[in-house]
Amino acid sequence: MSNHNQAAKAAAPRTAITPTRAENFPEWYQAVVKAADMAENSPVRGCMVIKPYGYALWENIQRALDDGIKAEDVQNAYFPLLIPLSFISREAEHVDGFAKECAVVTHHRLEKTADGKMIPAPDSALEEPLVIRPTSETIIGDSMAKWVTSYRDLPLKLNQWCNVMRWEMRTRLFLRTAEFLWQEGHNAFETPEEADIDARKMLEVYHDMYENFMAIPGFKGEKTADERFPGAVHSYTIEAMMQDGKSLQACTSHNLGQNFAHSCGIKYQGRDGAEHFAHTTSWGLSTRSIGGLIMTHGDDDGLIMPPRLAPQQVIILPIVKGEDNSAVMAFAEKLSKELKSIGVRAQIDKSDARAPDKMWAAIKRGIPIRVEIGEREVAEGKLTHTRRDLGRESKTTCTAAEFVGTVKSILDAIHTNMFETAKTKSRARVYNATTLDQVKGYFAESQDLGFVRMPVELLENADYQAFKKDNSLSSRCLPFEDEGRMVLIGKSY
Amino acid sequence: MSNHNQAAKAAAPRTAITPTRAENFPEWYQAVVKAADMAENSPVRGCMVIKPYGYALWENIQRALDDGIKAEDVQNAYFPLLIPLSFISREAEHVDGFAKECAVVTHHRLEKTADGKMIPAPDSALEEPLVIRPTSETIIGDSMAKWVTSYRDLPLKLNQWCNVMRWEMRTRLFLRTAEFLWQEGHNAFETPEEADIDARKMLEVYHDMYENFMAIPGFKGEKTADERFPGAVHSYTIEAMMQDGKSLQACTSHNLGQNFAHSCGIKYQGRDGAEHFAHTTSWGLSTRSIGGLIMTHGDDDGLIMPPRLAPQQVIILPIVKGEDNSAVMAFAEKLSKELKSIGVRAQIDKSDARAPDKMWAAIKRGIPIRVEIGEREVAEGKLTHTRRDLGRESKTTCTAAEFVGTVKSILDAIHTNMFETAKTKSRARVYNATTLDQVKGYFAESQDLGFVRMPVELLENADYQAFKKDNSLSSRCLPFEDEGRMVLIGKSY
Repeated sequence: MSNHNQAAKAAAPRTAITPTRAENFPEWYQAVVKAADMAENSPVRGCMVIKPYGYALWENIQRALDDGIKAEDVQNAYFPLLIPLSFISREAEHVDGFAKECAVVTHHRLEKTADGKMIPAPDSALEEPLVIRPTSETIIGDSMAKWVTSYRDLPLKLNQWCNVMRWEMRTRLFLRTAEFLWQEGHNAFETPEEADIDARKMLEVYHDMYENFMAIPGFKGEKTADERFPGAVHSYTIEAMMQDGKSLQACTSHNLGQNFAHSCGIKYQGRDGAEHFAHTTSWGLSTRSIGGLIMTHGDDDGLIMPPRLAPQQVIILPIVKGEDNSAVMAFAEKLSKELKSIGVRAQIDKSDARAPDKMWAAIKRGIPIRVEIGEREVAEGKLTHTRRDLGRESKTTCTAAEFVGTVKSILDAIHTNMFETAKTKSRARVYNATTLDQVKGYFAESQDLGFVRMPVELLENADYQAFKKDNSLSSRCLPFEDEGRMVLIGKSY
Repeated sequence: MSNHNQAAKAAAPRTAITPTRAENFPEWYQAVVKAADMAENSPVRGCMVIKPYGYALWENIQRALDDGIKAEDVQNAYFPLLIPLSFISREAEHVDGFAKECAVVTHHRLEKTADGKMIPAPDSALEEPLVIRPTSETIIGDSMAKWVTSYRDLPLKLNQWCNVMRWEMRTRLFLRTAEFLWQEGHNAFETPEEADIDARKMLEVYHDMYENFMAIPGFKGEKTADERFPGAVHSYTIEAMMQDGKSLQACTSHNLGQNFAHSCGIKYQGRDGAEHFAHTTSWGLSTRSIGGLIMTHGDDDGLIMPPRLAPQQVIILPIVKGEDNSAVMAFAEKLSKELKSIGVRAQIDKSDARAPDKMWAAIKRGIPIRVEIGEREVAEGKLTHTRRDLGRESKTTCTAAEFVGTVKSILDAIHTNMFETAKTKSRARVYNATTLDQVKGYFAESQDLGFVRMPVELLENADYQAFKKDNSLSSRCLPFEDEGRMVLIGKSY
């Protein structure tokens, strides 16, 4: 090795992403998003552009979750983007919760001033301003009130996939943006029992999605009163622990009791002939989940895509040294076709980039399996494949037929490994405390931030409340498995 | 028959929809939308609520069209809902075209007045107002300008599925609403030739969608200058003739030349090393297409769904007279399962409505095939099926196995019959004129409104221009097949 090469090697970063997670987690996150070409900031304050690779992931999330939602007999529909101010004001807690972050439409026309500047036409001012939906309980409740007259109309289960807007001062791609994409479900029932069962059931649908598609192990539980959705009676949540030990609220499902039924007038004639208010729920999962996926699975070389959602599950890298690449390309095309025919999302990197650049591009995008095909291998009918989650040590050479025969079980193994790894890591970072001193000690001394699981009574302790505030802690949830006796606290996104 | 029954029969309308198409086409349209439970007006001016049955149709349209779009190597992505005023003003014709119908966001917070009323907080006024996208050329162009630096980055083909808003004073469900759903594609190329080929190619993708899924025969052609998209060099369109003889612009595809590349700065270093502006296209299809579907295929009994897009392709109606319905229901369940297993969207009407009500509900929703199962038929292992497009005369009794074996070819036959019927009807209503007197005569005398196909030179005739204005006519397109020599004129939606 020449001196020049030695110097270059010593200076080169050892990871594809700088900084590393350990060095600066928030900057690592932004760098991963950029390296995987998933999204970027837009010229519109707080709004992001979701680039094709990020959007393809969202499409796969949508497809998987939509199947789960439809399996619960929920029907998709679409409601207006704009909500009259009077509607959003109907539920007192609700408007207080969202008033500070509403984008308000006040005019419906532009006109040119004398100096050629475009301005909102003064005579097009709306009598009643409209708010871009931050969430749709009130506008969907208005339709429900029309559609429900008898107990025979219940349950009524509706869902919409849409954009929503909550004006945010500090934004981060996927995690916190003024505009984001989500689904919001809104169900109505006869009895309080049905509504609560439903809110918990829809959380299970999310849980299934997180475990079986995103490979993210969550902590299921109920929100404490101070963390509840504005207007809800019970809010259920899945909290996911990111690799920096902070919590991401991964989705929520709310039992709204009769609050919105009262404010929107969702009434029905009951089996007893009398008039009753319905009991409603709402539940949502957003593009924020993509941020959670990145911060759960990414490593210092970039993204790791859970295989069941990966836009590309297998990337085929033709490695050609000589002039004639026809044999290698034919082999790659044949393999790609065979993989697609068994339902595997395969792609060939046909760019004219150098082989190492192709490899690193695939690594940074987190493609679950890389297949390298070189001239010698083609001659032998063989290929080399590598798992993104395990890296170089998983490098295996086999025949194309062997690979096609085992690729699905490899993808499943990657999913399972990713899930188990994330579960082991996050479960190891839950510290059980029984006293306030233990809680304080943990956050003062632990090298490795995580959640503290403590008795729920400590929440009322004035000392704890001061400590919580000083340390930016919050109650993440009352885990279902502890039946309301314990609470998980931590820092959060 | 008793006198009472005779009187009831005479008074009863002979059609499920009143008024009929012949009596009042616009009211017939609204009645069909309502009877099929597809959409309704919302409390927000000009915005509609798309109900589950209408939305399920839109989901099927999306799926079919998205496949066609992706087959052209277009990638889906997502861009901000809000567009800065300065962006939309960049292209002069563009802002003139949309300024009159823009919803403008001016504030980002609400606050409570002393008397408890919510208002836009004065100190939250935006420095630069934002417009809810009426279309996204300028905001997507801004991203393209960043993403394109070399000819190697071209072609760049992007599409987004989203909501857009154009403030409308007179609205009609699906046909003209302030907010609507659509896809908008935006492609960029090196050469003018590629851009024009692309704009025409994407029109073919739509044409395929209209013919092979919606069963709608369109008139393909180019828009005249006065009907062009604001900022386009060439606008291509599919015009579909509704049953009242009016034209619906079913979709458009625009060759934008370098207009938006200039105004957005989409530049690339060419193969010659010099800097060039890209050539762009844009193309869109919206929920308006659902209005076109209804007005093409509906009859005086309601909607007729084209089978390949129908949310339910087969509805099974169990007809139970006695107390015990278990045998009929078991037969229905078995049939439903068999149909689903071969990929047919089947549903059982399990409501406790009376048999005729179930039948009429299925007719009004336009479900392609109704299957009736009664006790006697179950005993014989048989069923009776009826096509929505042909009505009673198509009633056929056969075994369940025979039905399962032929159902797919029946669905195809329905599609073909719907398409051919619509084609025959619309082609018969194109009147060929060579002189202005013939044109005038047609619109004065014809009992049956339609299109007039006339030499393109007549457009310049001052007499024609006055006649056109007085009769609310417009140029629909220069049909491709006439190679620019002829123009189709007519009334339009």
